[in-house]
Amino acid sequence: MGKVKVDVTMSLDGFIAGPNQSREHPLGEGAQGLHDWAFELASFREAHGETGGETGTDDEILDEAFRAVGATVMGRHMFGGGEGPWGSDASFDDPWEGWWGDDPPYHGPVFVLTHHPREKVTKEGGTTFTFVTDGIEAALEQAQAAVGEKDVLVAGGGDAVQQYLKAGLLDELQIHVVPQLLGGGARLFDNLGADLPELEVTRVVESPAVTHLRYRVVK
Amino acid sequence: MGKVKVDVTMSLDGFIAGPNQSREHPLGEGAQGLHDWAFELASFREAHGETGGETGTDDEILDEAFRAVGATVMGRHMFGGGEGPWGSDASFDDPWEGWWGDDPPYHGPVFVLTHHPREKVTKEGGTTFTFVTDGIEAALEQAQAAVGEKDVLVAGGGDAVQQYLKAGLLDELQIHVVPQLLGGGARLFDNLGADLPELEVTRVVESPAVTHLRYRVVK
Repeated sequence: MGKVKVDVTMSLDGFIAGPNQSREHPLGEGAQGLHDWAFELASFREAHGETGGETGTDDEILDEAFRAVGATVMGRHMFGGGEGPWGSDASFDDPWEGWWGDDPPYHGPVFVLTHHPREKVTKEGGTTFTFVTDGIEAALEQAQAAVGEKDVLVAGGGDAVQQYLKAGLLDELQIHVVPQLLGGGARLFDNLGADLPELEVTRVVESPAVTHLRYRVVK
Repeated sequence: MGKVKVDVTMSLDGFIAGPNQSREHPLGEGAQGLHDWAFELASFREAHGETGGETGTDDEILDEAFRAVGATVMGRHMFGGGEGPWGSDASFDDPWEGWWGDDPPYHGPVFVLTHHPREKVTKEGGTTFTFVTDGIEAALEQAQAAVGEKDVLVAGGGDAVQQYLKAGLLDELQIHVVPQLLGGGARLFDNLGADLPELEVTRVVESPAVTHLRYRVVK
């Protein structure tokens, strides 16, 4: 079976999104630059249906991450925002199908953690969004059943990562630390409490734009 | 004039101390292991009046940091804990002279940020503690006047670092990220708000025990 891993971009001060997520600001306010390191890379462009782009260290890291993943788990707000039953939040009108457009970059099954049932959404390029209402273990089991030997990515947001980390269900964390201070927003590591797993650093790769830190979760 | 810099050990989840600082737990609870990477290094032992110890990458980084510093600024709780006028907190009895023992590792002038006046404390090995009640700029000016061309270290805690960062008074941040999750305590980066300086990564050095990240503050 593959790994269960987190692969996320974080500001030096620990944020993976800005405050006040809205339809206009999927990543919250002030966090637009957080992913600048990735946008022009060849692997990022390929995942988004484009050609060309920059190669080099950062691209190799991102390409490796993309290729290893067979299925993705994400929290509700990473899929599409809003609160309560789907379609009940006026700022996120039904049948709006999330942030990810017609051809999302996942190209495989995505399992969305939610308290509210919704029919599966099928997109172009092999991406499907399945809405899981019976908890993080159930979502992970469905993801693992779907991928065989490939890895399962817990994509975010912070709440989802924290739940999997506290439950001891993660094998690996890769954190792309960008030299930025956001000053506020959603933290990757928050509300974790005690009894956390030990970590072991397995790789550090640097570039001017971002430092790629990878850790193994010691079971 | 030398640099004004921060050089601090941080857990992966952003903490530089645990919760509930007390006379028994100067670094708060659960944070004892945060500095394990440094204790056996030759440079650390030398600064603490001992000989021998490990050499190698981590030692070179720490030795460089020690040698560059001519004066240190720290917050009150990094000197000695307690609240209110000195000697008024029963758990930190006067004339207790802080965490640092008779021969502190600073070997130069230390300026302690406090709201409460106190006479200068002189220790062995060249360390003095001067208590500054008129703000962070005044403490920095005194430190710079004392050191000439050497660097001023803003040693901590988090509150002090945050104040200097927000005021635009720092030139460099070096953060030693240890592969640990504390889950709670005092964050290095907290309550920073907006309008923060830009950063540029200037060095990344790894070892199994710790990742040394260095940033220039872009003015």
